[in-house]
Amino acid sequence: MKVLVNDEILDRNQAKVDIEDRGYQFGDGVYEVINLYNGVPFTLKEHISRLYRSANEIGMKIYVEPEQLCKRLLDLINVNNMKDGGLYLQITRGVSHRAHQYEDSIKPRLVAYPLPYKSVQTAQSAGVEAITADDLRWLRCDIKSLNLLYNIMVKQKAHEAGAFEAILIRDGVVTEGSSSNIFIVKGGILFTHPATNKILNGITRTKLLEILDKHGWQYKTEPFTKEALMEADEVFLTSTTSEVMPITNIDGVTFSHGKPGPYTQKFQDAFRNVVNSEVGSAKKA
Amino acid sequence: MKVLVNDEILDRNQAKVDIEDRGYQFGDGVYEVINLYNGVPFTLKEHISRLYRSANEIGMKIYVEPEQLCKRLLDLINVNNMKDGGLYLQITRGVSHRAHQYEDSIKPRLVAYPLPYKSVQTAQSAGVEAITADDLRWLRCDIKSLNLLYNIMVKQKAHEAGAFEAILIRDGVVTEGSSSNIFIVKGGILFTHPATNKILNGITRTKLLEILDKHGWQYKTEPFTKEALMEADEVFLTSTTSEVMPITNIDGVTFSHGKPGPYTQKFQDAFRNVVNSEVGSAKKA
Repeated sequence: MKVLVNDEILDRNQAKVDIEDRGYQFGDGVYEVINLYNGVPFTLKEHISRLYRSANEIGMKIYVEPEQLCKRLLDLINVNNMKDGGLYLQITRGVSHRAHQYEDSIKPRLVAYPLPYKSVQTAQSAGVEAITADDLRWLRCDIKSLNLLYNIMVKQKAHEAGAFEAILIRDGVVTEGSSSNIFIVKGGILFTHPATNKILNGITRTKLLEILDKHGWQYKTEPFTKEALMEADEVFLTSTTSEVMPITNIDGVTFSHGKPGPYTQKFQDAFRNVVNSEVGSAKKA
Repeated sequence: MKVLVNDEILDRNQAKVDIEDRGYQFGDGVYEVINLYNGVPFTLKEHISRLYRSANEIGMKIYVEPEQLCKRLLDLINVNNMKDGGLYLQITRGVSHRAHQYEDSIKPRLVAYPLPYKSVQTAQSAGVEAITADDLRWLRCDIKSLNLLYNIMVKQKAHEAGAFEAILIRDGVVTEGSSSNIFIVKGGILFTHPATNKILNGITRTKLLEILDKHGWQYKTEPFTKEALMEADEVFLTSTTSEVMPITNIDGVTFSHGKPGPYTQKFQDAFRNVVNSEVGSAKKA
């Protein structure tokens, strides 16, 4: 495997991090995971745009233009001969002697490499289980940062309970999953938390809402309560790697008769059509 | 400089981190900074005890006994011939293919090395400036984790304003500083936030309160508001490296006539006496 480190492509075993990298000592950095379909990175521009936004929000300047970064990532995909799977990239503020404050002269450090393909087809057809957990995260969840400790803790809790995801509840309201956005369908209308500081505005979430707009399907980006979640007709999550993933059981309670509901299936199909359409056209470009 | 990596002492340039270290990708780890006085680590046991507590709270098992870890740290101090300065140590959950959930089989990874001595004497005599900022951190601030992004952001804000520290306010209440605990004196009584999930229970904080207990000096571990802060007779912070540090200006408002107040000076002296006493006896042991 080859790894992109700043502007160099290195062998996996050459790609090392300094002990004083601020990513290692403070989680001082931002990241993205981009899904590949037959060698084509889906919504690459959207992910890169969000990466720059996240960096900007933490006062970190990325000293390469987005177009140049995209080019390097495409080189990485080529050199690894990647077909399916994910592209992981993170940018940390760089290496400096340990101090909370930083100098502008520190050079940010990019690391990007391929993640293995994991099929989600079976799970998408059958649905997955989830648990609920308190949302104790910071109040800048809109930044896709490397400070993921609480996300880990609740994902692990879900994992140990045999579940796929932890649905987070803050002040009685469903915010999002530990690594996904959460949607419910009630009376034919889709609900999801608005894109505020309390959630990470998922690229798949945005894409799905665009699809709904296009079809004229009803949705509301409104906060909804845990009670509304538990009384929903259908529940699903979205994420880059899971796409549209039905949730058929929460905290032991079965939803939509234990299988993906009709709205969820409709959204899955519509999303997959867009992927096929965009990846197809991207390949020709 | 020599660095301790697990049970090995390596040259600084040999101490590298893997790109899939969970510390680097998730901030999945805990840390401590221990102050040395003339080669003796102050409150070493207390710091190590807190390190194990933090690890336990994030479900991470440290596969070495505290006594053994202390011994390795003392070896590191010796091999570096450290006199004054800090000892930094962090333990991450280890290296694994990127996924939020983790297997118990991952081996945690320790890195420890000396931090340079920075004199705080001038600042302790003159007092420092602070700003206030919203406390947007997660609700497990009692864990000394590597998820320090918000702490960085507000410390940087303070730094850019020419101030030493950012005092954090959550729901109108003063919690703590970005890397310190905050105390006020009002009418001869000391106040500081109780050791809940909203603050990191500082070793210096605990030590100071023990000193107050011993002397029979009055204090209350009670939440106090930003208004109470701004109306305080004296304000100071405590931290491992700053010890008892007077704050003489907050958001441009001068406190205790712009110099350390009498209570603050009394606490500084009492703390320094305990350091001298414990470090002296530790050296003889």
